[in-house]
Amino acid sequence: MILVADSGSTKCDWILYNHKESNPLKIRTKGLNPAVLNKKNFLKIVASSKELESVKDRVQEIKFFGAGCGSKTNQQKVNEILTSYFTNAKCTTKEDTMAAVLATTKEPAVVCILGTGSNCCYFDGQNIHMKTPALGYLLMDEASGNYFGKELLKSYYYLTMPKELASLFNTEYSLNEKDVLKGLYQSKRPNKYLAGFAPFLFKYQEHKFINDLLLDGFRTFVNHHVLKHREALKHVPVHFVGSIAFYGQKQIKQVLAERGITGGVFIKNPLDHIVEHKINIH
Amino acid sequence: MILVADSGSTKCDWILYNHKESNPLKIRTKGLNPAVLNKKNFLKIVASSKELESVKDRVQEIKFFGAGCGSKTNQQKVNEILTSYFTNAKCTTKEDTMAAVLATTKEPAVVCILGTGSNCCYFDGQNIHMKTPALGYLLMDEASGNYFGKELLKSYYYLTMPKELASLFNTEYSLNEKDVLKGLYQSKRPNKYLAGFAPFLFKYQEHKFINDLLLDGFRTFVNHHVLKHREALKHVPVHFVGSIAFYGQKQIKQVLAERGITGGVFIKNPLDHIVEHKINIH
Repeated sequence: MILVADSGSTKCDWILYNHKESNPLKIRTKGLNPAVLNKKNFLKIVASSKELESVKDRVQEIKFFGAGCGSKTNQQKVNEILTSYFTNAKCTTKEDTMAAVLATTKEPAVVCILGTGSNCCYFDGQNIHMKTPALGYLLMDEASGNYFGKELLKSYYYLTMPKELASLFNTEYSLNEKDVLKGLYQSKRPNKYLAGFAPFLFKYQEHKFINDLLLDGFRTFVNHHVLKHREALKHVPVHFVGSIAFYGQKQIKQVLAERGITGGVFIKNPLDHIVEHKINIH
Repeated sequence: MILVADSGSTKCDWILYNHKESNPLKIRTKGLNPAVLNKKNFLKIVASSKELESVKDRVQEIKFFGAGCGSKTNQQKVNEILTSYFTNAKCTTKEDTMAAVLATTKEPAVVCILGTGSNCCYFDGQNIHMKTPALGYLLMDEASGNYFGKELLKSYYYLTMPKELASLFNTEYSLNEKDVLKGLYQSKRPNKYLAGFAPFLFKYQEHKFINDLLLDGFRTFVNHHVLKHREALKHVPVHFVGSIAFYGQKQIKQVLAERGITGGVFIKNPLDHIVEHKINIH
């Protein structure tokens, strides 16, 4: 029995799979970030899941991908906690971006993640290298869900969004000033609130205004992030992971083609992909 | 004795002035936002100031400009609380942007505030009208201190800032990833943190890169906000208030000239200006 986990700071998705069975079990717990939680609280969250408890002696292997797992110290901390609970398992912990990388490739590549946030890294076949620090939704995150959410809202309030789209947008979302201010400044995760507007883009991506908005966002992302790996791209492909990348692949491919780059694979959810394709992530 | 207050949500600046004296007294208390505080807590903050207490019977008039004072109900709430404390005073309460407006004009005008945040309104001689809701630093605030702080940080990390400037920027500010992430996502007021980088702009505004960055920011602001009042601008001037407007007036005038508009007055601090020039704000 193998357990694969993909943890952000707020939630952790676990997939329990057994080579003999076709349908793996999906489990969700609170986020497990070793940079934030002490050992006791980390363990408490793991132990709170009855589903995990019921298999704790049968798990032989754990692959844990998590936010805050970039350093050796934190990787070791997670390994120690998890093997103390899943006593018959060996555990490997890696930073969260590694799940995205391993879902797309085992070979060197540039890998971009475009989901609620965005980032771009170079994978040398073993380790991940960043050219630019990831400074989140207040500064960066170009072409992410939260970025496009901002662009949609701005175009709506600045009246640059065509009227027919503005009317649809206003029907599908609550856009009165009070609600938007609340979502932006009183919610715990404004980036998630903003990314909630992104589905509108893909529903109407055939509309010229939306298509242009997507192209502009992807151009900004490619120029600031992907092209920082210009040298590597002469020899390796560029892969994309995340729902924005998956649904926006038509526009991403166009932006890459404008710059003489060919897009590699586009994967919506790295963990699902790893499980579905039985990718060996040793 | 006249008391003029300008309150945000976090602090309230009071100026006590007496026509007979040349130097008015400046007092600072915690912010007094009637949309956030109940009567008891509002009064508690006022009463906590020994300086205000020492003059409470001698104040004849209070002008209160505050965040959260846009509605008649909240204006009345503030008037009631303040006249219950300053028993010999009459009190007038207005929204905070009115202090900026009254510092620049008594006549109809477009008035822009470029400080930590930014906004733009039309003053018809009595009331303030907004064309676009002010949705703060996560969505808008173009050409404000926090906007330029973001632009400086992005250009630094994206390596588009010229090396000699990047080296000065790195000497004058703490730019390691951890500190920036802390300032952005763990401080109570990320907009204030970001605006803290703005002084760098004005120290080096003669540098072409900074001059262009300022011009770009002001162009975005003028296009999205000032030009929304295109019709009014045929008949009324456009005034600017706030430290970004004051120190960036050379570039603002250039951007306005490109669009055939002449800038009006540029005032750094509205309250100081009102007091210094003994502007009658009845």
